[in-house]
Amino acid sequence: MHHQATLQFATSGRGTRSITQAVAGVVATSGVRTGLVHLFAQHTSCALVITENADSDVRRDLETVLARLAPDGDPAYRHDTEGPDDMAAHARTVISGESLTVPIGGGRLLLGTWQGLYLWEHRTQPQQRSVVVTILGE
Amino acid sequence: MHHQATLQFATSGRGTRSITQAVAGVVATSGVRTGLVHLFAQHTSCALVITENADSDVRRDLETVLARLAPDGDPAYRHDTEGPDDMAAHARTVISGESLTVPIGGGRLLLGTWQGLYLWEHRTQPQQRSVVVTILGE
Amino acid sequence: MHHQATLQFATSGRGTRSITQAVAGVVATSGVRTGLVHLFAQHTSCALVITENADSDVRRDLETVLARLAPDGDPAYRHDTEGPDDMAAHARTVISGESLTVPIGGGRLLLGTWQGLYLWEHRTQPQQRSVVVTILGE
Repeated sequence: MHHQATLQFATSGRGTRSITQAVAGVVATSGVRTGLVHLFAQHTSCALVITENADSDVRRDLETVLARLAPDGDPAYRHDTEGPDDMAAHARTVISGESLTVPIGGGRLLLGTWQGLYLWEHRTQPQQRSVVVTILGE
Repeated sequence: MHHQATLQFATSGRGTRSITQAVAGVVATSGVRTGLVHLFAQHTSCALVITENADSDVRRDLETVLARLAPDGDPAYRHDTEGPDDMAAHARTVISGESLTVPIGGGRLLLGTWQGLYLWEHRTQPQQRSVVVTILGE
Repeated sequence: MHHQATLQFATSGRGTRSITQAVAGVVATSGVRTGLVHLFAQHTSCALVITENADSDVRRDLETVLARLAPDGDPAYRHDTEGPDDMAAHARTVISGESLTVPIGGGRLLLGTWQGLYLWEHRTQPQQRSVVVTILGE
């Protein structure tokens, strides 16, 4: 048994937005009781991550950490076609990951209490992002 | 065909512990000959990683590298509710990843010779950790 | 429905090589129309990543970023059995990831326009690398 859908998100520039409810909706629609849901951002400059859903300072601090690992406008970058955040966004995406896989049990996402699913926009300007949701199971 | 189980691990604080044998046991029980096993830590401050299973210095050095990328007690962090390792553990988890997917062939994990599966505790104190194991295949 | 194959790649030392066409070929052979393809490098010193397929400077700059996060020959490393790139390669692999999962729809890889699949050799010398391709779906 399988189910596939594409979710569209309009981001407001760099930062995270919760996609937990949107994904839970696709899982409910699928009718799959036990299996896996895979999320795939069809882009090379935004990521999908799981982190704490309670204190928003966590996501703010993740921004701080990642901005150090791959700074905007680094003079060492050769690729800067679309501005100082261009290459940084590609590097941030490789570090943070463009896809997630989450177990489904009892027809629901088997997330821990404090886990939320987030789309992390790495470009500084707003973007349209497509996330392919694929569900396999029974 | 699918199989799902939850493994419980008591960690002894920051560091890695092998979970290869525990996961291999679930794969053997499942009866799946060809497919995928997915491991998912239901937490935002520990990770699941694959690295060398021979020289334990590798895991020690990974600790050194990750401690630099997301240091404990960094003054730039806003989130420190549970101490100096709190935010560092969240950042380390995003960098190292809360989930793994490994192929199954011939009824066994298709790991390379030097690959081991590890639960990497990122908090400094001991924790109870739940790992959901989901197997899909035939 | 499932399909499994192992692809062999000879790398020419540190750097990326495209594996998109090779993987697309396995997907076409499988006959799976909707599902997931999982790629798994059976090694602890090379990675599988998705990044921009247009300007090769992006992959060059990723090299620059990763070389900073886990430098060769760092005096803090204890593990250096196989030379100054040995431990760096293990750390780079944990940061960049040994596996990828990509959705399949309409019998094809559902990649975004600018996404390419790359094998990223993290050792400085040429290596033989095995990538297990597992396809689940219908």
